[in-house]
Amino acid sequence: MTAIFSTQAVLNAMKSVLPQGHAFLPLHEPNFSGNEWLYVKECLDTGWVSSVGKFVDRFEDELAQYTKVKRAIAVVNGTAALHVCLLLAGVKADDEVLIPALTFIATANAVSYCGAVPHFLDSEESTLGVDPRKLAGYLEETAEIRPSGCYNRVTGRRIKAMVPMHTFGHAVDLDPLVEVCQRFDITLIEDAAESLGSFYKGRHTGQRGLLSALSFNGNKTITTGGGGAILTNDEELGRQAKHITTTAKVPHRWEFNHDMVGYNYRMPNINAAIGCAQLEQLSGFLAAKRDLAERYRQAFTGIPGIRFFSEPANSRSNYWLNTLLLDEECAGQRDALLEATNDAGIMTRPAWTLMHKLPMFNACPKMDLSVAESLEQRLLNIPSSVMLGAGLDHA
Amino acid sequence: MTAIFSTQAVLNAMKSVLPQGHAFLPLHEPNFSGNEWLYVKECLDTGWVSSVGKFVDRFEDELAQYTKVKRAIAVVNGTAALHVCLLLAGVKADDEVLIPALTFIATANAVSYCGAVPHFLDSEESTLGVDPRKLAGYLEETAEIRPSGCYNRVTGRRIKAMVPMHTFGHAVDLDPLVEVCQRFDITLIEDAAESLGSFYKGRHTGQRGLLSALSFNGNKTITTGGGGAILTNDEELGRQAKHITTTAKVPHRWEFNHDMVGYNYRMPNINAAIGCAQLEQLSGFLAAKRDLAERYRQAFTGIPGIRFFSEPANSRSNYWLNTLLLDEECAGQRDALLEATNDAGIMTRPAWTLMHKLPMFNACPKMDLSVAESLEQRLLNIPSSVMLGAGLDHA
Repeated sequence: MTAIFSTQAVLNAMKSVLPQGHAFLPLHEPNFSGNEWLYVKECLDTGWVSSVGKFVDRFEDELAQYTKVKRAIAVVNGTAALHVCLLLAGVKADDEVLIPALTFIATANAVSYCGAVPHFLDSEESTLGVDPRKLAGYLEETAEIRPSGCYNRVTGRRIKAMVPMHTFGHAVDLDPLVEVCQRFDITLIEDAAESLGSFYKGRHTGQRGLLSALSFNGNKTITTGGGGAILTNDEELGRQAKHITTTAKVPHRWEFNHDMVGYNYRMPNINAAIGCAQLEQLSGFLAAKRDLAERYRQAFTGIPGIRFFSEPANSRSNYWLNTLLLDEECAGQRDALLEATNDAGIMTRPAWTLMHKLPMFNACPKMDLSVAESLEQRLLNIPSSVMLGAGLDHA
Repeated sequence: MTAIFSTQAVLNAMKSVLPQGHAFLPLHEPNFSGNEWLYVKECLDTGWVSSVGKFVDRFEDELAQYTKVKRAIAVVNGTAALHVCLLLAGVKADDEVLIPALTFIATANAVSYCGAVPHFLDSEESTLGVDPRKLAGYLEETAEIRPSGCYNRVTGRRIKAMVPMHTFGHAVDLDPLVEVCQRFDITLIEDAAESLGSFYKGRHTGQRGLLSALSFNGNKTITTGGGGAILTNDEELGRQAKHITTTAKVPHRWEFNHDMVGYNYRMPNINAAIGCAQLEQLSGFLAAKRDLAERYRQAFTGIPGIRFFSEPANSRSNYWLNTLLLDEECAGQRDALLEATNDAGIMTRPAWTLMHKLPMFNACPKMDLSVAESLEQRLLNIPSSVMLGAGLDHA
């Protein structure tokens, strides 16, 4: 194999963007330079650290305002948010749920928790997310619309929902996906775990799904330690989401009654306190991340065989995890690049192993996944922390 | 109905124990007078707030040392801990799991998450927990041991596990329960959510189950905001518990592979930091709680028809939630007592509604529940915070 680019050239391009003198630069470090301190201290001083407290309410209100949805419900993590989105969308045991093969494990696991079966979709290279046109063609061949919903002709199972994911913070092409869902009577849920601060045609990701999921894990654009949220524009679903994530307890001065099988998924107040402080800084974080992305883009311009992945046409992206894509003919150079960068203390990572290749999901239904398979071989994430961008301290 | 005791006499007894000048005394407030601050600040300063960090490891090690088990695995809450205990014990869909009717909803919900069916057991008044002798008689009539396990003759379902709960921190009578489990080939899991710091015959609760669950919710003896832990003396189950609660990711320098359907149940480092500080204070908390219990016991001595619930013969209890029991003939006075105390700013609460009375569980199998039914009518929890006991500041 002839190398198209030299590993050293790529390493040099990264180094030209990144600060010097760090022993190791992780993919994404959190940044606590705001009121985190103050708010957490308030929780400890007042004793309000747990499941009730003003920061949970405030965090939910501010998330709803920022993402412009009617209700946001804070939960323990993005996986829990996805699980509840699926439950409230009416996903039942033995239903199928369409999800991208190229996604983090949480999307597929949440489907499993419902007793449902993930059904894997291909991606398009322009967004790294579900390809709406290829999906439409596939469903025309595979799906059948009956009075009780959309069915998979091959497996006989109902296809209840679809959960596209905004990969690394780049918005999937939502308009045609919404159209496909409407045409095939499939409920749309957005996995916006990676896309807080990302917009599709000017609207925040997560607005179009019946319900959507955010994540505030430690590696996300903002973090609450561990955390997530459910977004919805349906007031009644918002009420149900709050109820089912708080053990389905029926309010009473002292009685303990619960009216359904619920979950203990509420976010503790102390984690919401951190979230409130982080949200205050979000616009600065996004500016820094977009600055970093632009400097990466410039640095990789002119290196043959590799390109920095820039936001798709309809997306204003948070650039959560910056991404390099190798040309098809350079895919064989990826592992050497992973070795060299990680050895040099610059963390890089390939895409997640595609879901249909994992042992617990390899018998699940899937469409042709050739683009996802290709992306999996050619993709690298590179350091993306807020502190690497302009406007924030590099120390 | 003739009142046996006067509501005012009970209220006066409470007031004689409790500090004055509080607008409202909740059932259980947390106490953060140790290193909570310092450790949380360290998390924020270093950026280690999330799923990896030294406080998670330290908290797990210290929990295992304190409870004298081989492995403790910190998770997001007690419900998650119970869920994983059941999964790792091999509970499958359509199995039955024996649990007390008198318990918090989490015990029953965790069974549901496995697709299994709760099967409700009666309590004994001496421990407020599962009655081992009554259970043995019931299983002799109802259960049948086959090569593949214990079966319910009536429903035909396998009875895979039993989850006794140490009610309000009083140890259930474990020795005869262990014997029943062995005789009927049923796996024992302890719901020790309420019993950190409680001992049965000198051994910490949670040691006897194949796996056991702790909770660190905001109302517990120690808190992490929200949190729980799995305890086990089986190293291999401990390894599996860590794996399945951390998305079942296979360790690798950069690859993302998962070998089974896992859960995102890990405790964030910032919550574990609070837990480490709380554990340092546990012996003081327990002393204060036992002092408070003793003062309550004395204050209620001599009031006819009502008694303070003292630790059972084989239990050294944490007195997590202090409990009053009304005599059978005074049960009708309970609601007036709830009204008067809560109106006076002293929070009191009846027992949880028994599980078999809730709509989602009312078709589940159950034994005669006459003692639990009686306890449900006669029981009140009263303020039990650490700060109400001697040795800690009442401010």
